[in-house]
Amino acid sequence: MLYFKSDYTEGAHPKILEALERTNLVSQPGYGEDCFSAAAREKIRLACGKPEADVYLLTGGTQTNLIVISALLRRWEGVVCAGTGHIAVHEAGAIEFSGHKVLTLPAHDGKLRADELAALAERFYADGTHEHMVYPGMVYLSQPTELGTLYSRAELEAIAAVCRRFEMPLFLDGARLGYGLAAAENDLSLAALADIVDVFYIGGTKVGALCGEAVVFPRGNMPPHFTTMVKQQGGLLAKGRLLGVQFDALFTDGLYFELGRGAVALAMKLKKAFVERGYPLFLDSPTNQQFVILTAEQETRLAREAAFERWEPLPDGRYAVRFVTSWATTVEQVDALIALL
Amino acid sequence: MLYFKSDYTEGAHPKILEALERTNLVSQPGYGEDCFSAAAREKIRLACGKPEADVYLLTGGTQTNLIVISALLRRWEGVVCAGTGHIAVHEAGAIEFSGHKVLTLPAHDGKLRADELAALAERFYADGTHEHMVYPGMVYLSQPTELGTLYSRAELEAIAAVCRRFEMPLFLDGARLGYGLAAAENDLSLAALADIVDVFYIGGTKVGALCGEAVVFPRGNMPPHFTTMVKQQGGLLAKGRLLGVQFDALFTDGLYFELGRGAVALAMKLKKAFVERGYPLFLDSPTNQQFVILTAEQETRLAREAAFERWEPLPDGRYAVRFVTSWATTVEQVDALIALL
Amino acid sequence: MLYFKSDYTEGAHPKILEALERTNLVSQPGYGEDCFSAAAREKIRLACGKPEADVYLLTGGTQTNLIVISALLRRWEGVVCAGTGHIAVHEAGAIEFSGHKVLTLPAHDGKLRADELAALAERFYADGTHEHMVYPGMVYLSQPTELGTLYSRAELEAIAAVCRRFEMPLFLDGARLGYGLAAAENDLSLAALADIVDVFYIGGTKVGALCGEAVVFPRGNMPPHFTTMVKQQGGLLAKGRLLGVQFDALFTDGLYFELGRGAVALAMKLKKAFVERGYPLFLDSPTNQQFVILTAEQETRLAREAAFERWEPLPDGRYAVRFVTSWATTVEQVDALIALL
Amino acid sequence: MLYFKSDYTEGAHPKILEALERTNLVSQPGYGEDCFSAAAREKIRLACGKPEADVYLLTGGTQTNLIVISALLRRWEGVVCAGTGHIAVHEAGAIEFSGHKVLTLPAHDGKLRADELAALAERFYADGTHEHMVYPGMVYLSQPTELGTLYSRAELEAIAAVCRRFEMPLFLDGARLGYGLAAAENDLSLAALADIVDVFYIGGTKVGALCGEAVVFPRGNMPPHFTTMVKQQGGLLAKGRLLGVQFDALFTDGLYFELGRGAVALAMKLKKAFVERGYPLFLDSPTNQQFVILTAEQETRLAREAAFERWEPLPDGRYAVRFVTSWATTVEQVDALIALL
Repeated sequence: MLYFKSDYTEGAHPKILEALERTNLVSQPGYGEDCFSAAAREKIRLACGKPEADVYLLTGGTQTNLIVISALLRRWEGVVCAGTGHIAVHEAGAIEFSGHKVLTLPAHDGKLRADELAALAERFYADGTHEHMVYPGMVYLSQPTELGTLYSRAELEAIAAVCRRFEMPLFLDGARLGYGLAAAENDLSLAALADIVDVFYIGGTKVGALCGEAVVFPRGNMPPHFTTMVKQQGGLLAKGRLLGVQFDALFTDGLYFELGRGAVALAMKLKKAFVERGYPLFLDSPTNQQFVILTAEQETRLAREAAFERWEPLPDGRYAVRFVTSWATTVEQVDALIALL
Repeated sequence: MLYFKSDYTEGAHPKILEALERTNLVSQPGYGEDCFSAAAREKIRLACGKPEADVYLLTGGTQTNLIVISALLRRWEGVVCAGTGHIAVHEAGAIEFSGHKVLTLPAHDGKLRADELAALAERFYADGTHEHMVYPGMVYLSQPTELGTLYSRAELEAIAAVCRRFEMPLFLDGARLGYGLAAAENDLSLAALADIVDVFYIGGTKVGALCGEAVVFPRGNMPPHFTTMVKQQGGLLAKGRLLGVQFDALFTDGLYFELGRGAVALAMKLKKAFVERGYPLFLDSPTNQQFVILTAEQETRLAREAAFERWEPLPDGRYAVRFVTSWATTVEQVDALIALL
Repeated sequence: MLYFKSDYTEGAHPKILEALERTNLVSQPGYGEDCFSAAAREKIRLACGKPEADVYLLTGGTQTNLIVISALLRRWEGVVCAGTGHIAVHEAGAIEFSGHKVLTLPAHDGKLRADELAALAERFYADGTHEHMVYPGMVYLSQPTELGTLYSRAELEAIAAVCRRFEMPLFLDGARLGYGLAAAENDLSLAALADIVDVFYIGGTKVGALCGEAVVFPRGNMPPHFTTMVKQQGGLLAKGRLLGVQFDALFTDGLYFELGRGAVALAMKLKKAFVERGYPLFLDSPTNQQFVILTAEQETRLAREAAFERWEPLPDGRYAVRFVTSWATTVEQVDALIALL
Repeated sequence: MLYFKSDYTEGAHPKILEALERTNLVSQPGYGEDCFSAAAREKIRLACGKPEADVYLLTGGTQTNLIVISALLRRWEGVVCAGTGHIAVHEAGAIEFSGHKVLTLPAHDGKLRADELAALAERFYADGTHEHMVYPGMVYLSQPTELGTLYSRAELEAIAAVCRRFEMPLFLDGARLGYGLAAAENDLSLAALADIVDVFYIGGTKVGALCGEAVVFPRGNMPPHFTTMVKQQGGLLAKGRLLGVQFDALFTDGLYFELGRGAVALAMKLKKAFVERGYPLFLDSPTNQQFVILTAEQETRLAREAAFERWEPLPDGRYAVRFVTSWATTVEQVDALIALL
């Protein structure tokens, strides 16, 4: 079976396992106060060009979204996101469970638009009854989005300008950031992101680690008592070193970027093959998630030898499906899949 | 520096790292639906003698306490525990943050007493205004306790009888269970625990794993929609295999029990040395946590060469301190510490 | 100034004040256990033709929505409502603050449609990842809606059938129910409502009382421990008699229905006048809220002598505005307003 | 039957009913923006000698405690109170349901002691693991306490000094404040309270109103967005005038103080009678709640003709019981009760 179902179907990049082994018996304090986490934080600061940044290592994506959003919002505020945003759809209502509304805007290939965001905030403050409504307190977006698309630098800056105007911190979910950074059309480096947004995270789980997301507060703007809030939501690992060792490895010798490039190159090869063989794209993604349209017959046949995700049924009986490459995908697997087309 | 500060200062037992390496490139679905997690669950069921048990793998102790307790309690209920219980003191109010009161009873060397528990429930239901009060909805205890002590089978059965009488599920926090099972005075096997309590967990983080706690609902009594609740609180790992592989290794060839025995044997050697050299015990613990009383001078001197935890200052100026052994402690380290005494 | 801004701008109907005075010095227990509340509950059961109903008196509309919804939903569930639903827009995120998502469907003149509700639930359960999503756990609708419109019996029954199919309790917000019951086109009596929905409330605050909403669980299906949950959310009045006396008066000699009829008759008179004088209706409401479209010039001129609510600006520069009659509106006031048109 | 069970067993003082009647048909905006609420707020500011105070009118005591505490606490904080505090015992876990721990200290006749409060805060900040614990974020106390006792000015100032030292706002629950102000031994005027504490409320429900508690932030220190938070917790009355009219009446011509004095004079008469007839006091209360000890036989006999509250059973088989006077108690009722002794 050829696995293209997601980017979390294997373990970790070998260099990460080696690092875990190498450091295994070094005695270190718990809760992220170990030397490996310290080194990882420092390397991430360097990679972002932000020596003053606060970096905090957490375990998974939903956990990170939940912890960051509920730490930043005040009680009367909600978080604005695209209707397709992960927090709006696939996190089991975690944000609401923490007491906050998710305020959705239309998604355009998975993306927010700055003008629609501004209109939402303008309408809100112009409404004479807005004290009876949920304040738009921050903005959440994903890079790449849940549909594999990317914000350009201009788009992100326009959104950030609206955020500043209405005092809404801008939070970027980078669960798959490594695959976004590696895209040909991407014009947003880590340093550029760090300049533009108020908080973002660098996803490890989907980019070569066993687990782990590195939250970056670029301007040393981590909220006070963040550790206590992490503890309160069950997110503080006793062996924080597990995260530290992994991110230290990912940010040594550019491994994180290398893993992204490899997966995206294979995804582009796959996309080209789909297009050349006449499979219509569901949308045009420059990253490691590729969405194509299959007939029911094609879908059934392919599913016999390849694992991929049925994304959504189309009105005409066909299916949009998703193929995902990762740091673990090999050129042989991609070639074998292409042979099946 | 000799490390006796806690049982989470190193990585994982080598067999766990080997297992991670061996399974690393096997493609498997996410969210705990992988074959390694399935195997681990099955081995744990066997070890508990409960083929019908539900087993759920989570990441850390506070997370597990939070998720299990908030899944079991109904809105009008709180959880009863000893005043020294981890959830009452050292989890940053996670239970309250999830909406529930922690109802405390006096701790006797870290333990609840069945008669005091019964009295609490009787008083509650006898009170004509109890509809205006928090219902005692479940009972939490730790085995071993936060002070290293153990419930005997008779004590646990007496508590469970009170729990049944007042329809309060009994939850046992086994973050250090491996060290409790290995104690000479312990008369509670995994199977016995599974017979007596309603839910418990087998701690991995402190007993040889990088992370991981295995929650056991012995009678197939996991609440419906548990996975959704885990997701809602940010506890669902995308790469659930990380937990599965580790518990599979821990429950292969009795590794879990072996690690417990090793650490407890060293702890007993250490206790004996303290007693023989005239250091008073703060309390008599049969497990891997040893509490002794040091004068300020002794404390300062020892702290130069050994890392241990200052537990609490005593009224007479001395200190109760804690020394912890673990699966990673070596006999050489213990001998070196004893030499310092 | 002519007041048409809302239906809560005066005190209480004189018969309610008389009843408060008459009963003032009768000593009675607190917390709704007084004889007046008992009498009110019984009269409401009779009016609904449901001797087995549970009736619970609360203070205000948002409070009632919050308490009922958070008592009925389980942790993994959200409440479905129209995008214009009061809980979705104007209750400051109270539902989310209690931990639950509000799942919105398109509003059609303020109303949900049964087919769209069914489609939402079907899509949800057909989605292979729905364990990671918020379950549609109950349905909320308002009668009359926030736009003054009414569900017909056939519409409500169709929605209730979908609710039963997917095990979603159906909750009807009747903050203005008295004005709906009095509408010429209404074909839903209290008894019919009680047959169809799972819980509803009879609004007092906007229909002649100082405060008070009577929640009806028609089939004796009030959740266990409801009083404790009410207390937990600060909704339990020490002097529950305040609510009891008022509802007792409202349901004596048909006062509640009489107040509704009076206000609706005046609203119809006003609507006719608007239409005859060529003012376009924003929508066609058969109840006490009338929505018309004014030019900016008309709006400014009228606002000098009448208080009404600016509902929303229209793209062409005109305004939709709302005029509301109530039990306290007099024919003289309506005539004076008409004279201004 | 003679009613001494509580101070909320009758309606409202006649002057309040008169005020409701007199103002009934004046059209006014909702949500506390009416002229009566404005007048009440102004009179309360005057009575407190604090022209810059923010005053907010709410409906009931538990609601007020819940709203004020959850508005003031930050996520990582809990509220400190005496073990007998209303929020710790009789509010169904409302504070915990809002996400916060209630941290209890020993009660001394219902009161906190400044030295024990200081010790709690000192221990907390001295604890190296306090980031894993609940921060003491504010202090709650009741005046009079749940046991009818009073803090002296010196005691309250000592507590306030500890609060300032550890940056914990001091909140005083004045549900029965009117009866405390009227006590012979009281040395704390409204103005003195307003000088010392950070927020307090003047109870209306138990002192002559149908409902209503007036929250005072003496230094204009009401938290931003307070109205939105009140709405979010279901505490915003559409007809806020109901509260405004009542507090306006209570603070006209000193009615509030007069009602307190009357009830306390009768309570003192009753206490004297108990003592003279040899009934032991359970504790010595200078306010409208009197606690005496009855034998089982006495209790049974008295309960035939008088309603009072069984407070708690004593180890020797006797009962502590509570007799409460209120603004509605008459001298005839007290004489009749005394005759029964």
